[in-house]
Amino acid sequence: MDKKVINYQKILLSFLHEEAESKTIPDIDFQVIEDIRNNHFLLIENGWIEKRYFDAIVFHFQIKTGGKVWILANNTDVLVAEELVKRGIPSADIVLGFHAPSTRQYTGFAVA
Amino acid sequence: MDKKVINYQKILLSFLHEEAESKTIPDIDFQVIEDIRNNHFLLIENGWIEKRYFDAIVFHFQIKTGGKVWILANNTDVLVAEELVKRGIPSADIVLGFHAPSTRQYTGFAVA
Repeated sequence: MDKKVINYQKILLSFLHEEAESKTIPDIDFQVIEDIRNNHFLLIENGWIEKRYFDAIVFHFQIKTGGKVWILANNTDVLVAEELVKRGIPSADIVLGFHAPSTRQYTGFAVA
Repeated sequence: MDKKVINYQKILLSFLHEEAESKTIPDIDFQVIEDIRNNHFLLIENGWIEKRYFDAIVFHFQIKTGGKVWILANNTDVLVAEELVKRGIPSADIVLGFHAPSTRQYTGFAVA
């Protein structure tokens, strides 16, 4: 695995752990998922709010071939792409996967 | 990591890979997530159905301390607990996490 990918893995995990630690909701467990082999990194919220059960994706990143970081889900109001740039991932290596391919050229981030 | 946990990891991953391979929806990517360190195993569907974007959990399992397999999400009509029993995980080691703790005693599976 190349150095760039290892560095991006560290940045994503450190962001996800900080997010997990900053959230406190009673009976909700914030779980950082790290799949080093397939390069998936997620934050999941699991548990109960009143009598309703949740098991939902908060953030989902994938580092794809070529070392691009795809933001596959962001179910928060955090400007996550900007946050990743601040932490050292250049915008040319970030893809907003939740935007349709045809509109990604207008985002200021990578198209793929 | 004990032998039982390694065996359960294999059973969960083989189930998830079979499920991923059995599903074919155009523009949808079925991703098996394997977090060996924290013992989380998921199937996620990612992509587009017509113009709607999806990044959603299909299945989510966690092997917790003591080697119990928690089913944290099953967003299908597969009877997944029964399927895991058929594949070799005894019902005493399966917890239906999406049932409230107070009702789990009636499920025929473990309470925790």
